[in-house]
Amino acid sequence: MKSSLLVLGAGRSSAALIDYLIRQSESRNWSLTVGDLSLASAQERVQKSKTATAIAFDIQNESASAAAIARADVVISLLPATLHPKVAQLCLAHHKHLLTASYVSAEMRAMDHAARQQGLLFLNECGLDPGIDHMSAMQVMDRIRSEGGRITSFESFTGGLIAPDTDPGNPWRYKFTWNPRNVVMAGQGTARFLQDGTHKYIPYQQLFQRTTPIHVSGHGRFDGYANRDSLQYIDTYGLQGIQTILRGTLRHEGYCSAWNVFAQLGCCDDTYPMARVDQMTHRDFIAAFCGLKPDETPEQYLTEHFQLTPEGPELSKLRWSGLFSEEPIGLAAGTPAAVLEHILNKRWKLEPHDKDFIVMWHRFRYTLAGHTHTIEASLATTGEDSTHTAMSRTVGLPLAMAATLLMQDQIALRGVHIPVSSEIYEPILSMLADEGIRLTEKAY
Amino acid sequence: MKSSLLVLGAGRSSAALIDYLIRQSESRNWSLTVGDLSLASAQERVQKSKTATAIAFDIQNESASAAAIARADVVISLLPATLHPKVAQLCLAHHKHLLTASYVSAEMRAMDHAARQQGLLFLNECGLDPGIDHMSAMQVMDRIRSEGGRITSFESFTGGLIAPDTDPGNPWRYKFTWNPRNVVMAGQGTARFLQDGTHKYIPYQQLFQRTTPIHVSGHGRFDGYANRDSLQYIDTYGLQGIQTILRGTLRHEGYCSAWNVFAQLGCCDDTYPMARVDQMTHRDFIAAFCGLKPDETPEQYLTEHFQLTPEGPELSKLRWSGLFSEEPIGLAAGTPAAVLEHILNKRWKLEPHDKDFIVMWHRFRYTLAGHTHTIEASLATTGEDSTHTAMSRTVGLPLAMAATLLMQDQIALRGVHIPVSSEIYEPILSMLADEGIRLTEKAY
Repeated sequence: MKSSLLVLGAGRSSAALIDYLIRQSESRNWSLTVGDLSLASAQERVQKSKTATAIAFDIQNESASAAAIARADVVISLLPATLHPKVAQLCLAHHKHLLTASYVSAEMRAMDHAARQQGLLFLNECGLDPGIDHMSAMQVMDRIRSEGGRITSFESFTGGLIAPDTDPGNPWRYKFTWNPRNVVMAGQGTARFLQDGTHKYIPYQQLFQRTTPIHVSGHGRFDGYANRDSLQYIDTYGLQGIQTILRGTLRHEGYCSAWNVFAQLGCCDDTYPMARVDQMTHRDFIAAFCGLKPDETPEQYLTEHFQLTPEGPELSKLRWSGLFSEEPIGLAAGTPAAVLEHILNKRWKLEPHDKDFIVMWHRFRYTLAGHTHTIEASLATTGEDSTHTAMSRTVGLPLAMAATLLMQDQIALRGVHIPVSSEIYEPILSMLADEGIRLTEKAY
Repeated sequence: MKSSLLVLGAGRSSAALIDYLIRQSESRNWSLTVGDLSLASAQERVQKSKTATAIAFDIQNESASAAAIARADVVISLLPATLHPKVAQLCLAHHKHLLTASYVSAEMRAMDHAARQQGLLFLNECGLDPGIDHMSAMQVMDRIRSEGGRITSFESFTGGLIAPDTDPGNPWRYKFTWNPRNVVMAGQGTARFLQDGTHKYIPYQQLFQRTTPIHVSGHGRFDGYANRDSLQYIDTYGLQGIQTILRGTLRHEGYCSAWNVFAQLGCCDDTYPMARVDQMTHRDFIAAFCGLKPDETPEQYLTEHFQLTPEGPELSKLRWSGLFSEEPIGLAAGTPAAVLEHILNKRWKLEPHDKDFIVMWHRFRYTLAGHTHTIEASLATTGEDSTHTAMSRTVGLPLAMAATLLMQDQIALRGVHIPVSSEIYEPILSMLADEGIRLTEKAY
């Protein structure tokens, strides 16, 4: 009989998850504990609840961490992904289930056998992307296959953006709604996917140039850029023999061609400290990456080097973000990525009443009885404000729902998994629909 | 009284070094031992000598390595740079001097104190580049300073190319004359330097576009691309307050704009294995990195994507290298870098009578008595054939000469160093001049 839940991490993105679990715990008489490095953050999250407990939790303090985990039946980790293996080891040691929204690392995968042997589920990639994308795609693909269809192509893109009426003067149509450093460093490495039966490779330096234009009915035009390794999902999804598989990230049309300037210049590098950051302005930062001829301005250089229009969309976005201004950076030191994040955050920080916007889009092609068919499925959802974001809901609710099912012994699966089996995706997609989060399909 | 020399590594690049040391050892009655993983390679190198000894040497076999090093007074390591710290540890344990042509690693630098305490010299960067470049530049700069000049700018470029009459149909004017994998992976990371008082950063994706045109009197036009971190030489050279410092690599004019295609496409990545290499042709390889529209050829894609001319110099070079041919690659597996190296090596392997060509170029700017002066210094030297290469001579002779001086107790310096003190560079530059290797200067 399970009775105790532990949530690790009480950052801003945890609000929807913890609110949901407070409701479940109070109605079902479970104990709920929320731990964070900052006890005050944990306390803030549980203040709505009469029964939930806040604790200070530091994974580096092994004995206290072990004690907290030992008291729980199910552990949900919202900690940085690099800390999940440590949490998972403690869960193995104390025989506890574990849920995360992060990609399965090699270390996590290696615990599969041990988790099975102990009758534990370590469910990962159970947030939005990865998470709802897996679940909603598998539901469609399993249906196609059950009808006898053969899937030939699967493309899937998700983006965390801002709502149309938020910050209308912002030409990027973007703000930081998730970890800003991850946004700045997005796409480093080489993207691998399958297109028309051929393995394709896009290195970082091409990523923001080789985008896929995507139109989502009722929500406009977007650009998708490829995510790191789509090939690994061929086996996971059971798509052996598929001709095209591509997973990626959505941005509003025009974002990528402007971001390409940062990517090309080297502004997103996090591997070395820049010199004299404390004495530099925004303009000095961008100029440090330009091969300026005598008396040439950064604007002139970028215009010529990237063959842009002086008042065109790319330079307008950089100008709006203050990259050409003489404003001091205001950091003592930093890598290029840290400095760029700091500069962008001056304009891209969510204001209290800003609303974020999530869009997810899948396209499936399949053959059935000699004919070719296409299904597009999409999800669009808007946040309420800067705390109750669509990002926080769509990442947190699937995790909270998986925990609720597991607490009720409604998931039999054991080992290290992602949510691609119907036992998990059917109830969670149904519970998400009850919360207003559902994909709409069109077939042609 | 020193009497014994040990050379580790007897690859093709060791010929000039070992020949020089055979002559010195026979006339001075020193014992000379040459060790290599392959005993046959070591035997081939010493066959001219009546007294030198060949041994099998495997740095992974610690007891045998220690025994060989214990018998020597001075050790010269031509092993891969990553193995130098192991050799250095054995040299510390057995109180032996060590010479290498490799960049000083952090591990090597950390041995400075221990080497000093034991009265040992660990001299690194004593080949061509780094090596002769340091020595020849310091000689000029020390002279300028001794005359009261203040150095405001130092630029230095070196390239290992092919002689004008070698392979006249080769449009790259390049072949592999040194470690081919290093050539393919050259420039990865971010180059950092100082230009007109400003710190500048060039990431890999810009490196082959932001080249410096250089004219070397009597030898034509070259393009220079920046090497990784020029800033660290400000202190080494005693150039605090300098306005411009840039070290780089020379290629024949036009090489870099063609190589930029490989760099941009991601063909030089050594971090992941490509799929199905055994079934691919050269043309499949290049196509895997192109975002081809239906029915578009790789040539058409590259022409449009990089705004090239179909029969222009970039695509002509790729075509000459067979990148568009349907020839099978002929490898079972490999990273992009390994595959590209394999394809290029089909045309870029030195033939027996090919001659290589080394060119080095420095430019110094300084102020003296209120006037601005410029000195250019350059070196150009041609190999004899594919064994007696200019590369082997210019890398090996400085090392052999440093060893000769050290054996004769003519270097008092102790600790971890590079050859920037006059005690080392004066005699070595003089000995190199006796071998026909000298820079010529022009001032204006």
